[in-house]
Amino acid sequence: MPVNLTAPDPDSLLAIDGVELGFAEAGIRKAGRRDLMLVRLASGAQVAGVFTRNSFAAAPVQVCREHLAAGASVRALLVNAGNANCGTGAPGLADARRSCELVAAAIGCGASQVLPFSTGVILEPLPMAKIEAALPQCVASLGAANWAQAASAIMTTDTVPKGGSTTVKLDAATVRITGIAKGVGMLQPNMATMLAYLATDAAVAAPVLQALVRRVADRSFNRVTVDGDTSTNDSFVLIATGRAAMVPIADDADPRLPLLEAALVDVAARLAQAIARDGEGATKFITVDVRGAASEDEALRVARGVANSPLVKTALFASDPNLGRLLMAIGNAGIADFDTSRLQLRLGGVTVIENGGRAASYREEDGARVMQPAEITIDIDLGRGSAKTTVWTCDFSYDYVKINAEYRT
Amino acid sequence: MPVNLTAPDPDSLLAIDGVELGFAEAGIRKAGRRDLMLVRLASGAQVAGVFTRNSFAAAPVQVCREHLAAGASVRALLVNAGNANCGTGAPGLADARRSCELVAAAIGCGASQVLPFSTGVILEPLPMAKIEAALPQCVASLGAANWAQAASAIMTTDTVPKGGSTTVKLDAATVRITGIAKGVGMLQPNMATMLAYLATDAAVAAPVLQALVRRVADRSFNRVTVDGDTSTNDSFVLIATGRAAMVPIADDADPRLPLLEAALVDVAARLAQAIARDGEGATKFITVDVRGAASEDEALRVARGVANSPLVKTALFASDPNLGRLLMAIGNAGIADFDTSRLQLRLGGVTVIENGGRAASYREEDGARVMQPAEITIDIDLGRGSAKTTVWTCDFSYDYVKINAEYRT
Repeated sequence: MPVNLTAPDPDSLLAIDGVELGFAEAGIRKAGRRDLMLVRLASGAQVAGVFTRNSFAAAPVQVCREHLAAGASVRALLVNAGNANCGTGAPGLADARRSCELVAAAIGCGASQVLPFSTGVILEPLPMAKIEAALPQCVASLGAANWAQAASAIMTTDTVPKGGSTTVKLDAATVRITGIAKGVGMLQPNMATMLAYLATDAAVAAPVLQALVRRVADRSFNRVTVDGDTSTNDSFVLIATGRAAMVPIADDADPRLPLLEAALVDVAARLAQAIARDGEGATKFITVDVRGAASEDEALRVARGVANSPLVKTALFASDPNLGRLLMAIGNAGIADFDTSRLQLRLGGVTVIENGGRAASYREEDGARVMQPAEITIDIDLGRGSAKTTVWTCDFSYDYVKINAEYRT
Repeated sequence: MPVNLTAPDPDSLLAIDGVELGFAEAGIRKAGRRDLMLVRLASGAQVAGVFTRNSFAAAPVQVCREHLAAGASVRALLVNAGNANCGTGAPGLADARRSCELVAAAIGCGASQVLPFSTGVILEPLPMAKIEAALPQCVASLGAANWAQAASAIMTTDTVPKGGSTTVKLDAATVRITGIAKGVGMLQPNMATMLAYLATDAAVAAPVLQALVRRVADRSFNRVTVDGDTSTNDSFVLIATGRAAMVPIADDADPRLPLLEAALVDVAARLAQAIARDGEGATKFITVDVRGAASEDEALRVARGVANSPLVKTALFASDPNLGRLLMAIGNAGIADFDTSRLQLRLGGVTVIENGGRAASYREEDGARVMQPAEITIDIDLGRGSAKTTVWTCDFSYDYVKINAEYRT
């Protein structure tokens, strides 16, 4: 059961001028569920992406990088769930390219103007015949109001579709932002079997958009972790259709850029948090705030160390205020010359550690009480500087083991 | 249930001339079980140790470092289970020092000649009154044949005591080596809530012994991991009583040193493997062999990445030959310029990955078959060089979550 997360109301997902979405049941891994999704972009859209750093980047990720590097304007995205097309060698690459050719033929553009994405089981050949057969259904269903269906078509072991929208006023124009994502398992440190697509009708020049997608990822998807594993297929794509009535944002000093960025981060962070809320077997949603660090990198190492420690995560599952494990995880972050006597730690707002040891005011019943809610914030002050960061995660339950032990059966 | 591991036959644990062991039921955390262990060393013994790198080194670890640095000959070790005396600030340090004073008074030596060790719950005060009350029982029971009882007295959530012995011929002398250890959880990368004590009657000069203890640790305890967490109390101590009839090994070029080192590694590696076999909730014992690496550090990163991946470990628990997760874990090790097409991987002797993809000869039923045994070797050849390493670990089961969720209740 996801933690305080339900499917978005389809009406809440705003259509983005210049973006149409189609979907189909291709039966890639299981019959009777949506597993193929097509995005068609109007001419003039700018697209930028960030991808997994795993050495085994899947075939579609390799093709995405190629097509984006080639610089042809992107006109379509094809996403399949159920098969990751990873570790599939030259035939897998050929399949990814062939997918692009099929889409190109169907909507009338060049193959290099199509970006392919896959998520699901690794090391198995992509069932091209099923994709080819279902593609016409995707094309036929293309529509601007299909964000909710699109969100459901990219799910694997997600239990609910994930999407969100917002608007932001940039001078006279009110631009829209809508995003969808899928997550669960194999998340961190640079995203997940995570696919996320954010589209806005704002007009943003290509170089500005490329820098923007990295900054947005660093403040959202790169701050979420389920189990410390990182997928071979992670992709986050930012689309700016430029259909809003505005002069394009053409350089990084444009005063409208911070406003747009904040709105994009707002939606992306909600999606990232939704991924942690729907982590495999999650029963709790955990926010790890680290401040007082000497650098943001140091803050991030501590936050991820705590968020990924199996001993901390099982204690969170048990609602056990096991302060020792928190200290252990912080102490393992490899901070040089760490004066542990400066450490302060609050759990759900209650000061539990001060001066590196149990707080004088701390009572076990307070710790037990603040561990009960489904959402818990761990607030760590290292007392070393002014850098800070936030990481979102979930606990580690019997169901995590169950889901991952039985994934292929 | 530990994997192919039973308590050592007490008669198999060889007495070491110059080492006596005593034990008691102090009731530190639970009544009716051994939880205090005293080692008395004859005059002339050399002692060297390696300790946790966690920033929150426990009070006894801090005192051990002080006493070893001060250079007074060590005459006793006191080990308690049930309480780690960690995160306990100045009172905790005072308790650790007071323990040394109590032992010193009881056996007649200086307090700085005593090394204290604690394992168990963190952030709770050491129950000094119980330790003081039980110490006479430890002293009264001192004897050279008590290695098995000593092994049981240092256990926490270990399910069986761990010990081993061997002998090695150094010229005319046959020297003995006996070791005991406790492990489980919070293991890696630099040992664990792991305490290990190895004693030999060989004569080894202090500087040689200090270098030796590091090398032995690197080839045994630093190659085992249960969950990637590292304890605040890890300690490995090597004792050389010098009672064997031999000229002392006084420098690193002594031709007897490699023989002694190999014998020490033999016992230490058995103890390290025993720790993985008895990992919390373990149902399988996993050996990860990495070869063909550009450096040993690279080999170790890959081996640990695989051994610590929750997704790999849950697949091992399920006996699922989930090759994708293995690729994912290898790909996440952060190897620069990794040509993944050179990767070869064997599972239980069956080639499953070759040239970076599924081996042409691989059949799923072979993978399923080799995943059934309780002991599985994952053999990874990176195809980049000639460096190699081995890491031992266990799988990740429901019981890992259960044990760690309920640890304090």
